[in-house]
Amino acid sequence: MCEANAYFIKDDKEELLMERVDRVVPQNGEIYLESIWGQRKTIAARIKELNLVDHRIILELAEEEKIN
Amino acid sequence: MCEANAYFIKDDKEELLMERVDRVVPQNGEIYLESIWGQRKTIAARIKELNLVDHRIILELAEEEKIN
Repeated sequence: MCEANAYFIKDDKEELLMERVDRVVPQNGEIYLESIWGQRKTIAARIKELNLVDHRIILELAEEEKIN
Repeated sequence: MCEANAYFIKDDKEELLMERVDRVVPQNGEIYLESIWGQRKTIAARIKELNLVDHRIILELAEEEKIN
């Protein structure tokens, strides 16, 4: 299976947001994520980089998401 | 290997842009793509959707890219 793990950057470090993500849909400044197990999250962020061979999705949180 | 193929939407149909994409970096309204063979492209577009289990990256071209 070729899903990837989604990480977000916090204080210059990567933190795991969701494992085994299948679907990623950016929309209106948010990112909708869905894992192979049907877990769903929407987060105010943008895609910073994908490294698919390494199974990595790196997200950068929007300012408002950082504050909350 | 878990790279994906990148497609863009044109006239409501998907056209193949690059095969076996490893890295994807959105930046300033453009998307930088790099394949496992080191092929590189930068295109004025945004990520519409990723389906990683299906190895698919769907891009939506920016208006200026459609015109040219």
